[in-house]
Amino acid sequence: MNKIKNIGVLTSGGDSPGMNAAIRAVVRAGIYHEVEVTGFIRGYEGLINNDFVNMDRKSVANIIQRGGTILKTARSEAFNTVEGRKKAYDNLKANHVDALVVIGGDGTFRGASVFSKEYDFPIIGLPGTIDNDLEGTDFTIGYDSALNTVVDAVDKIRDTAESHDRLFVVEVMGRDSGLIALRSGIGVGAEAIMIPEANMDVDDILHKLDHSRQDKSSKIIVIAEGDEAGGAFAVAEVLQKKYPQYDTKVSVLGHIQRGGKPTCMDRVLASRFGVAAVEGLLNGERGAMVGQINREIVFTPFDHATKHIDAEKVSSTWLKLIDILSF
Amino acid sequence: MNKIKNIGVLTSGGDSPGMNAAIRAVVRAGIYHEVEVTGFIRGYEGLINNDFVNMDRKSVANIIQRGGTILKTARSEAFNTVEGRKKAYDNLKANHVDALVVIGGDGTFRGASVFSKEYDFPIIGLPGTIDNDLEGTDFTIGYDSALNTVVDAVDKIRDTAESHDRLFVVEVMGRDSGLIALRSGIGVGAEAIMIPEANMDVDDILHKLDHSRQDKSSKIIVIAEGDEAGGAFAVAEVLQKKYPQYDTKVSVLGHIQRGGKPTCMDRVLASRFGVAAVEGLLNGERGAMVGQINREIVFTPFDHATKHIDAEKVSSTWLKLIDILSF
Amino acid sequence: MNKIKNIGVLTSGGDSPGMNAAIRAVVRAGIYHEVEVTGFIRGYEGLINNDFVNMDRKSVANIIQRGGTILKTARSEAFNTVEGRKKAYDNLKANHVDALVVIGGDGTFRGASVFSKEYDFPIIGLPGTIDNDLEGTDFTIGYDSALNTVVDAVDKIRDTAESHDRLFVVEVMGRDSGLIALRSGIGVGAEAIMIPEANMDVDDILHKLDHSRQDKSSKIIVIAEGDEAGGAFAVAEVLQKKYPQYDTKVSVLGHIQRGGKPTCMDRVLASRFGVAAVEGLLNGERGAMVGQINREIVFTPFDHATKHIDAEKVSSTWLKLIDILSF
Amino acid sequence: MNKIKNIGVLTSGGDSPGMNAAIRAVVRAGIYHEVEVTGFIRGYEGLINNDFVNMDRKSVANIIQRGGTILKTARSEAFNTVEGRKKAYDNLKANHVDALVVIGGDGTFRGASVFSKEYDFPIIGLPGTIDNDLEGTDFTIGYDSALNTVVDAVDKIRDTAESHDRLFVVEVMGRDSGLIALRSGIGVGAEAIMIPEANMDVDDILHKLDHSRQDKSSKIIVIAEGDEAGGAFAVAEVLQKKYPQYDTKVSVLGHIQRGGKPTCMDRVLASRFGVAAVEGLLNGERGAMVGQINREIVFTPFDHATKHIDAEKVSSTWLKLIDILSF
Repeated sequence: MNKIKNIGVLTSGGDSPGMNAAIRAVVRAGIYHEVEVTGFIRGYEGLINNDFVNMDRKSVANIIQRGGTILKTARSEAFNTVEGRKKAYDNLKANHVDALVVIGGDGTFRGASVFSKEYDFPIIGLPGTIDNDLEGTDFTIGYDSALNTVVDAVDKIRDTAESHDRLFVVEVMGRDSGLIALRSGIGVGAEAIMIPEANMDVDDILHKLDHSRQDKSSKIIVIAEGDEAGGAFAVAEVLQKKYPQYDTKVSVLGHIQRGGKPTCMDRVLASRFGVAAVEGLLNGERGAMVGQINREIVFTPFDHATKHIDAEKVSSTWLKLIDILSF
Repeated sequence: MNKIKNIGVLTSGGDSPGMNAAIRAVVRAGIYHEVEVTGFIRGYEGLINNDFVNMDRKSVANIIQRGGTILKTARSEAFNTVEGRKKAYDNLKANHVDALVVIGGDGTFRGASVFSKEYDFPIIGLPGTIDNDLEGTDFTIGYDSALNTVVDAVDKIRDTAESHDRLFVVEVMGRDSGLIALRSGIGVGAEAIMIPEANMDVDDILHKLDHSRQDKSSKIIVIAEGDEAGGAFAVAEVLQKKYPQYDTKVSVLGHIQRGGKPTCMDRVLASRFGVAAVEGLLNGERGAMVGQINREIVFTPFDHATKHIDAEKVSSTWLKLIDILSF
Repeated sequence: MNKIKNIGVLTSGGDSPGMNAAIRAVVRAGIYHEVEVTGFIRGYEGLINNDFVNMDRKSVANIIQRGGTILKTARSEAFNTVEGRKKAYDNLKANHVDALVVIGGDGTFRGASVFSKEYDFPIIGLPGTIDNDLEGTDFTIGYDSALNTVVDAVDKIRDTAESHDRLFVVEVMGRDSGLIALRSGIGVGAEAIMIPEANMDVDDILHKLDHSRQDKSSKIIVIAEGDEAGGAFAVAEVLQKKYPQYDTKVSVLGHIQRGGKPTCMDRVLASRFGVAAVEGLLNGERGAMVGQINREIVFTPFDHATKHIDAEKVSSTWLKLIDILSF
Repeated sequence: MNKIKNIGVLTSGGDSPGMNAAIRAVVRAGIYHEVEVTGFIRGYEGLINNDFVNMDRKSVANIIQRGGTILKTARSEAFNTVEGRKKAYDNLKANHVDALVVIGGDGTFRGASVFSKEYDFPIIGLPGTIDNDLEGTDFTIGYDSALNTVVDAVDKIRDTAESHDRLFVVEVMGRDSGLIALRSGIGVGAEAIMIPEANMDVDDILHKLDHSRQDKSSKIIVIAEGDEAGGAFAVAEVLQKKYPQYDTKVSVLGHIQRGGKPTCMDRVLASRFGVAAVEGLLNGERGAMVGQINREIVFTPFDHATKHIDAEKVSSTWLKLIDILSF
């Protein structure tokens, strides 16, 4: 194995708060260890289109606190084709880039896995997604920030719900994973939550509401966008019929959950991951995602990291907690 | 006219940040001027149902920073009937309440106007609505807070829009008034806005976007919920077809705009209005809304205050400003 | 008078939130009216050292929400000398810059006034200071943001003060002007405030506290840094002796008041002022500060704008308000 | 052992964000498990003075998002005496309270330890302190919130530091522990930090600054209040002499770090701990602090929990991280 002299870095898939902190850490760690760093624009598209910038220390100054990603991000159809990956590889070679750090979620890592095997190319992944749905790390970059954005928004909704004796159905992100709904639901003091992992239907919610305090002046149901029950509006319709005494409203939080300044936790996590990714590559790690389990840095092979976690077990503890707290 | 000895206070209609600061000011000013204050619950419903609390100085401690309203609010159908108002009057008499301060918007003041004439009852209104759509005051309580909530949310959306080269259509509150869209649109650096007052259609937006910088990586359109074009989703559909290079997304901000901590400006405004309302009542003012015009306190008769403002003239200056700034 | 073809823009003196929004508006308005815009770095130092950048539309993209100033700022001793101003003039000529927009406070405008007379050079000033201490405008850029930063910080202090039954003396900015203390004091529900304009001493505070509710679990005194009584620590010492039942603490908010995202109001104000400054210059305005009085744009000659406002009259109304509200 | 029928709850020592969420969880879990809950006011003072309230589900409604503690807190000298504890015990007996949940830091737990042994009284402690300096839990309630308050404040300071080319020395809380300085220092992108555990002196800082980028326009040093070097002002004086090119400023963040809304993480942690404390008591746990290690609930005897953690080992990893990131 030759010494790595130039590391490429890119962000791919949906953006998440803390991606900039991760880019900064990769660049600073690279320079610290006397490696050049090349930033590719719009994820794998940048590899294919040879769209890149040379990163120096100043290029990542004053970005640790910024939402989004200065390298931009995209989902790349072309990278799923043999031809696209061939172009990407040729461009990496031409630019003397001999390793990659890819920041993103499971889609990003599946692409990285194929590419790294196809061309025997060293790649380390950084978990950058608000969904926290990856094996191999307790937390992904952006999850904590998204949770706080949800909590801030629902605190505002609680103000108006309390004033008007309203029942609110709040839809949060999480197409395949209810983790955002679960944690934020506890954080906002929700009366009930609906998540894909729990196989709940509206009757379960009705049952819970029937058994919660009837003297509450407001009720908040947090629902993951991917829940099977058919979306916040459908749930709200059923609830409105059942509880005519409440004025039922829907709030879909949407894309505000992806943006905003990262929290301290996400900045620290991203900083630590970025340094670990570079040092991992230099120590021969490849084809793996860097993560943090029980506060220690661990590397998990891409194929294992992208297996969706079994939330069933996790969620039952938390769902019980919500039952107790909203009692 | 007999001396006023007991002032009732209530919040009615949609809640807005700063209502609690206004209640606090009414209570403290009442006590300062040796008048009792009675708080009625859920607006005019509280008058009709005789649902009230006696307010002392402590009952409004530590609420100046809270969103919502501790007196709760509602829209009252019953108060629109002769019988409902009769009950309200009888309860006021029975409780020796001899004047009212009502905090709300145009619907609240229309009810107050009818009641005050019907029973020759002293009422002062406080403009509490996020819409800022009342004659007789430069600013209503809650408008500034709602603007900052919108701006914070769209700043987050801008992060993700920039990272993904997206066009966002953001729907903000304002059923009959585009003022929130107008000001927040400038505040977030929107590429274009759509408001009811301006009779714009989607073609106007298309025209503007065609003439704005084509190298922008994101575009944000702010649209008032009441705009005739048919809602954010319909607008987005047209834009997506016309600009396939942008991934067009919709965000409906919804009820978060009503909640949250009031800004300093709304707290100061509410504090000033609350004191002015009590002192106005004691000085013989009645049947009028207290407002602030050019930094001076003014009283405007209810019938004039509830006439919707002519935003046409105002908005042309501001729309021009957006054209220049997004150029 | 020749047509203006290139406008220089700079920020000078202490920074304030919204300066970036103002720079953006100057640049966009310049380009809209087909004028080039040159940005000078570190205020008048940039003129003297010929340190500048050509501004295009993209150079001010995505800065409206950022605190600080992308052009940096400084206080320039050299610009107070004949030689310094000569160099500045020569550089402006050499770069074909034929007008200036200077964003700052009274010191900035005094320099601009001397320079504009000395060289008959067209300059418009933009009021950018958190202190709001200029004649010729109801509000300066940054004042509203600083107020909200103070209010957010003191809300946090109130939490801990309430929990511990503490008396807090909070020092806010305002060397010559108590306006920040006055408005934020109302906003946070302070029990008393001390400002330079009011000639209050600690005895006045003691007197007020004696007459306020004795059952309060916390008390907050807001004091302007410039108050004569000798600073927050000296005041706290006296209060601690007099009120041993309270655990008296001091909090000096300091520089956090200058930073952070500008509020919606400051962004709108800055945007409006920036456009008005450019259009004013093109219409022949010069040697004046642009401001907003009663919602209309006005131009005030520099020598008048920098006269400190007579806060005495203003403050008595507001001090009375605090007495009533903390009663 | 008799069945526990009435659990007392109190908050003691310095307040921290999330204490209200913890109180709420204790109350709701108690009621869920059919146990009465009694809230004592001002910590151990409330036990001694028999100052308490009976808590029902409604008494903790809508407090999960509030800073401070609704039960108030204090440090109690009397509880350190035999007589004081005797009174406390007599009052607990008289009120039929047969177990306690105490929320606080190491001082709180030392008192609890003595009392529980002296009277063989079941007590569980909840770690409520912003310092995160307890053995037996990865995180204390309030630590994450305080970190985010620090990061928000220093982000604002960075804005003004960047605009003025300034060096800021920012003092954060942590009398015996540098953990807040360490994590927030990484979060804000500090150029260097000084913590009690690391035995650094100003020369170390000078050395670091000499080796960091000389082209940076601002530098931020985060220093823990307990650091031996003599406080932020003394450090700043040395730095100002050494680096005359920077305008060196000091900011002491102070008490804002204790207040404010808790973050989602602190709300979830507090909720989980509160439920676990009640269920622990019912299951026979006593004389121990509930904590979370590697995401599992653990109980640690008071005498072990209050041993200060050895931060030496922890901090070297993190200090290295700062060196790399500020390189």
